[in-house]
Amino acid sequence: MNEMTPPLGLRAKRQEDQRRRILDAAIACFARGGFHATGMQAICAEAGMSPGGLYRYFPSKEAIIEAIVERDRADIAPQLLPLLEVDDVVGALIATARAFMTGNLMPESLVIFPELNAEVVRNPSVRAISERLEDEARDILVRVLERGMSLGQIDPALDALDAVRLLMAMTDGVLMRLLIEPGAKLDGLMPMYERAIRAFLAPQPLRAAQTEARP
Amino acid sequence: MNEMTPPLGLRAKRQEDQRRRILDAAIACFARGGFHATGMQAICAEAGMSPGGLYRYFPSKEAIIEAIVERDRADIAPQLLPLLEVDDVVGALIATARAFMTGNLMPESLVIFPELNAEVVRNPSVRAISERLEDEARDILVRVLERGMSLGQIDPALDALDAVRLLMAMTDGVLMRLLIEPGAKLDGLMPMYERAIRAFLAPQPLRAAQTEARP
Repeated sequence: MNEMTPPLGLRAKRQEDQRRRILDAAIACFARGGFHATGMQAICAEAGMSPGGLYRYFPSKEAIIEAIVERDRADIAPQLLPLLEVDDVVGALIATARAFMTGNLMPESLVIFPELNAEVVRNPSVRAISERLEDEARDILVRVLERGMSLGQIDPALDALDAVRLLMAMTDGVLMRLLIEPGAKLDGLMPMYERAIRAFLAPQPLRAAQTEARP
Repeated sequence: MNEMTPPLGLRAKRQEDQRRRILDAAIACFARGGFHATGMQAICAEAGMSPGGLYRYFPSKEAIIEAIVERDRADIAPQLLPLLEVDDVVGALIATARAFMTGNLMPESLVIFPELNAEVVRNPSVRAISERLEDEARDILVRVLERGMSLGQIDPALDALDAVRLLMAMTDGVLMRLLIEPGAKLDGLMPMYERAIRAFLAPQPLRAAQTEARP
């Protein structure tokens, strides 16, 4: 490490690369052995770094888990923002969900999905990170649904916040199902997911017509 | 313990009670500290048993986790069987899902739900138990949906097996959402869940009519 001090931008870039390298190594270790059975030693070996190098970035395994949740959830909001400007709100929601699920289907990070959720439930600092980022994603989705309502594409009688919660539950549930059940495949589940979401969000002309028809 | 040997039925009953006591104690410990951070010592203390007493029933923590998954999943099929004889298939499906979710809302066992899923994903012997019991539940649900189709209550164009997978995904997803998001409540989510399931399963008279209307 006897080199010249690189300019600030390059140093930041290198630090970012090192952080990513450590997180990717940690995910690979966690996927094999689980969070609690994995030691910092194993993460160092996987990342090809010395303990000193690793501890400069992350003081503990808990800090690594927090950073994984942060990175995992921070990805979501930027994927959702374009939904605020599309013409076909429901179609774009489904396309985004498909992209989200496909992106989460990398075997390594998918395998740690239930354990990340377990950490969110149990570990207060992981929970705080997850809640902050989930709040952000949920707020965007509520605005997306409200926009769909004003465009006449989504039933305005729906409670937008609880409807968003159901959409998030369905998406998480489908990911979980792909993990738990060997026979379940995205190609088979996706048409079901799309049908359920379209039917759930659709304005209800029939019911409205029936109500109007009554004296 | 200087008593007469009890008759066989009573001994089996006592063994069953002891097993249940250990599993309940283990769930309480796991809910506080997670599977991997919990030792057999802590489970003994929670159950008020000696290590010798506990090891007579379960040789390892892994055996306890397997037994918890077995008990948790074995509960499901008996709750589903009555669905094969109801008049209102969709209404009964939703009522059963509500009972299932309410039964799983005991704070202690709900908290370990994501970690049980993580074990199913990672641990082959836990996975084998879960798969056997899930196959059983899924087979019943497929028959329930097929019956609803033959009664004209469910769209016969649906693939019954993938539709069941979506229903299971939605149910797991709602449970997970209640865990992860403090603001999410069963009372708010249940009407959404019911609407989504009814809309998803409904026969599609409009689409059929449109198709027929075409020359």
